This record gives sequence, C-alpha cells and structure tokens, in this order.
Amino acid sequence: MSKLLIVGTVAFDAIETPFGKTDKILGGAATYIGLSASHFNVNSAIVSVIGEDFPETYLTMLQKHNINIDGIETVKGGKTFFWKGKYHNDLNSRDTLDTQLNVLADFNPIVPENYKDAAVVMLGNLHPNIQMSVINQMTKRPKLIVLDTMNFWMDSTWDELMEVIKKVDVITINDEEARQLTNEYSLVKAAQKIHEMGPAYVVIKKGEHGALLFHKGQVFFAPALPLEEVFDPTGAGDTFAGGLSGYIAKTEDISFENMKNAVIYGSNLASFCVEKFGTERMEQLSKEEVKNRLLQFKQLTQFEIELQ
Amino acid sequence: MSKLLIVGTVAFDAIETPFGKTDKILGGAATYIGLSASHFNVNSAIVSVIGEDFPETYLTMLQKHNINIDGIETVKGGKTFFWKGKYHNDLNSRDTLDTQLNVLADFNPIVPENYKDAAVVMLGNLHPNIQMSVINQMTKRPKLIVLDTMNFWMDSTWDELMEVIKKVDVITINDEEARQLTNEYSLVKAAQKIHEMGPAYVVIKKGEHGALLFHKGQVFFAPALPLEEVFDPTGAGDTFAGGLSGYIAKTEDISFENMKNAVIYGSNLASFCVEKFGTERMEQLSKEEVKNRLLQFKQLTQFEIELQ
Repeated sequence: MSKLLIVGTVAFDAIETPFGKTDKILGGAATYIGLSASHFNVNSAIVSVIGEDFPETYLTMLQKHNINIDGIETVKGGKTFFWKGKYHNDLNSRDTLDTQLNVLADFNPIVPENYKDAAVVMLGNLHPNIQMSVINQMTKRPKLIVLDTMNFWMDSTWDELMEVIKKVDVITINDEEARQLTNEYSLVKAAQKIHEMGPAYVVIKKGEHGALLFHKGQVFFAPALPLEEVFDPTGAGDTFAGGLSGYIAKTEDISFENMKNAVIYGSNLASFCVEKFGTERMEQLSKEEVKNRLLQFKQLTQFEIELQ
Repeated sequence: MSKLLIVGTVAFDAIETPFGKTDKILGGAATYIGLSASHFNVNSAIVSVIGEDFPETYLTMLQKHNINIDGIETVKGGKTFFWKGKYHNDLNSRDTLDTQLNVLADFNPIVPENYKDAAVVMLGNLHPNIQMSVINQMTKRPKLIVLDTMNFWMDSTWDELMEVIKKVDVITINDEEARQLTNEYSLVKAAQKIHEMGPAYVVIKKGEHGALLFHKGQVFFAPALPLEEVFDPTGAGDTFAGGLSGYIAKTEDISFENMKNAVIYGSNLASFCVEKFGTERMEQLSKEEVKNRLLQFKQLTQFEIELQ
C-alpha cells in the first residue's frame, strides 16, 4: 500500500454557526485530512503536535481510521492549539474569535523514519518553515507534494511561503487568496501566475461554488454538491485536500485525467464534512455513502451532446 | 422548422465597466435572446416595442440573423426604452444610473398570427401582465414556456408575477432572486418551493459560478466557462435564456436529459456574450466557435471514475 504523509494541526475548535454552537471539539487540518484520506485504504501518518490536555480517545479514533500517529508529538505540560470562530449567516465568511497557538508556537516536525519515502506528502495549512522542514526530511522525492496555505502566511511570511510554493506539485488555495497571491482578479490569470511560481497543478477552491483545477493551460471544474442543509463548513477545505491526496496516494497516477478524479473525490468527501458539526460526519462515513454520492456527482455534471 | 416566440425589450443601453464605457448602444432582453437563439436555425420572432429613434440598421441586423420582426411595434413619435448602468470592479454587481421606460410604459404586445402556435415561448424579463398577455394570445398550448424575471417584479407586482409563474414550465432566475422569492437560503430548498409555485423546471443562474437546473428532485449543474477576461456581463442572462429556449425549440424534446444539454448551450453562448461590449460578440459568432466551445465545456466537466 502507498504511503501518505500528512502534516498539519491536530487541535481543538469551538464553532458557532447559525444552527448552533459547540464547546471545544476535535479539529485541526491534519485531523480532517487524515479522516478524509482514510477512505482510500492507504497507509497514512500524521505529523503534528498536541498538549497533555488532548484526550486519548481522539487519538484512538484516528488510529481506528488506520492513521499512524507516531509523528504526533505530545508536549509535556503543554496545551493543544485552539481556534474559536463564528460563521456569518451565509456560512461563506467567518470571524475568528480566539486563537491560542500553545504548543504550535514551537512546533518542530519530525517525520517518522518509515514515512520518509512516502509517495504523497500533504502539507496542511501551517507556517511555511514547518512545511519546508518536512519536505527537507524526505529521503526520496515524493511522487506528489500538495500544499495548502492561506492569506495569513501571505501577509506575514511571504518570502518563506514563496520558497515552499517553488517546491510543490499542487497548491490548493481559495479564490480570494489566489487573487491576493497574484494581484489578478481573473482566476484563469491568477492560476497562470501561480504556475509560474512552481506548482504544475493549481486548485482554486470556491467553497459552495466548487473548485477549479488548472494544469498546463487546461482547466477542469469540480462542482460542490448542492445541499439542502449546510451545518458547519469547518474543515471542508482540509477534507477536500484529504480526498485529493488520499486518492492520488492510492492510485499513484499524477496525470491530468486522474487528477480530475482526485478533485471530484475531494469535493465528494467535503460534501459530507459540512453536514454535521466538526468531524462527526467524517468519523462515521461509510464506503457505500461515498460511492452513492459519486453517482450523484456524475448525474450532476455528465451530459451527452452530439456535435453537429 | 420549429417556431420560437420571444417577448422582451429591444432597447438602448449605456454601459460602464472597469474596462471602458459605451454611449447608447443596442441592448434589450429580446435582442440578446434572439441573437443567441439564432444559432439554432429555428424560426424565431420577437414581440416588442420601439420608438421612432430606433435605427433601421439594428432591425436589419436582427433580420439578417433570421429573426422575424413583424411583432416589433414602432410607436410614432415615441422614444425607445433606455437603460444606463455601471458595473462594480468585480463585475458581479452593478448600479442602475438611469432608466427611461418611454414606449415600454404603454406596451401592449401583439403576437403575430403565424406565431400563435409556436412550439416554444420565451418570456423575457418584463411586467408580468405583458408576459401573461402573450401566453393568453397563444392558440395552442406551447410545448414549453420559459419565463425570465427579476427582483423588481417581486417587489412591485407580486400577485401578477405569481399568476404567470403558475403557467410556465421553466423559470430562469438568479440566486439572490430565488432566495427573495422563497425566503430560503439553500438553493435546493428554494428550488423545491418554486416547483410548488408551478414550473417543472427551475434554473438558478449564479453568474460566473454557473447555473443549476432542478427537476423533480434531480439536479444538474452547468458551469460557466472560466475566462481570462470578462468585459461586459450585460445580456449574459438573456443570452443564456436564448440558448436554452433556442435549443429546445430546435429539438422539441423537453426531457430532463435534453434540458441538461439546453443549459449547457445556454452557458456556452453566454460565455461569448461577456467577451465584448453589448451585442458585438453575439452578432459575429460562428457555428464553429460554438462547437469548439462545446468541446471546452466537455473537457471542463467530464470525468471517468470507475466505481469500486
């Protein structure tokens, strides 16, 4: 089985949406990525850091999803990263109410020995220096390195971010961030500029409006599934990235045609994530449900027009 | 050849976008619908009203596109409907700077005798009483009646609008208007409520984010083509409606499968409309260009995943 190495936060979230609010629950980019990728029966491992306040039951749950946790360091006496946010009525925007870096402030990622030759590396949203450190620890150039990032790093660590972007094959980024990164309003032009920064594949996430995949002048579009109810968008982008990287780890085929399938799986898995608060839906997700939803994605997008 | 009856404005527009501005140029819903539908070699006719200030050359241009103009009434001494608007930087929103109803204020539509049995009727955005009058003049129930409308009529003529909505098979409406019409934020729920008002097909237009087609619990998505440059969104929604209704008039097949093709053609034709100011691009459009763009739409959306 192929190996997928995931770097990112394993954390606590407190979330408020128009539909309710939670106390501290399980969150973090690597958590969502790992749960999503676990759908593909790959050997995956998370590199992260937590405090002593992190419940054992959460780690057990990750292990039950076949995720290796040897790379999750527990800092003695430390407290786990915490994020608190409130979504606006349209769920498309949110305010951060509290961020406590805690153990993340001094995070020094250590890649487990037997994952230094992983086929796919998924770099979740983190300080670019941490992402770079993981790339540098790999003993074999991975088949695919996927980077997720956000506007915060563009504002605060531009040069370091540019160094990492140079090294990766795929970047996933949302539409506003793609515009900020390139000073281009047109997403087609933005993608061209990001290609020039390094990544052969550029994935621009548009939330409820789906995601665009750009590669060598070609473009593919994965819609989001229109849902009756969206309860909590937290983790949807990470779940998308987990589906993408998990599918590529399983197939080890980095052609444009197969990358199309990867973003469809990413969108498929993300459509479940938002149906309940936090990780709840992803923890319970069955193969059958994902397969049925894939049929829905086909019905949503496939058409037959004869060319005259 | 099938007959398509189009009702809507034939008008003057003055447009300002971040890329430039125009003086009074040719505009109007029926103009865009007619030019778009002309791609399908159907017998189409426009019912509208203009003033004596309307240039003969515009009418000749419509005729050259095989559009019957017998139903375009010229009011002696009257002035043509005029709209002036300015788009914001993102092109997704606009301000109306001036609206002069002129001859439209007393418009009494007369359907030409030989179009009273048209297979498809396309009701462009107008006062619901005018739309209803056209429906009532038909001697044979059309195979398909398509209605376009907007928030202005929801605000000012709710009851009349509901009467027309009851009578039509397809409604095209944008996302914000669908929400206003139903008090539902979820577009899936909004579509369900609109179905209950009458239309078996509900098309929700999301501008640069594509369009959703709802029918009996099923949903299909036609993306917008990601473009490097969008110069002027004016008429894109009407061009979409013209592509949809023109394709159905040509095929006379109102199955869900064929309606999918119709919205893809709508999106295809609309993607040209925005490339230049006003009707310029649509007046020059070749069959070959539309065919090539259809291939682009296929590449944009079609994927092959084996179900395991």
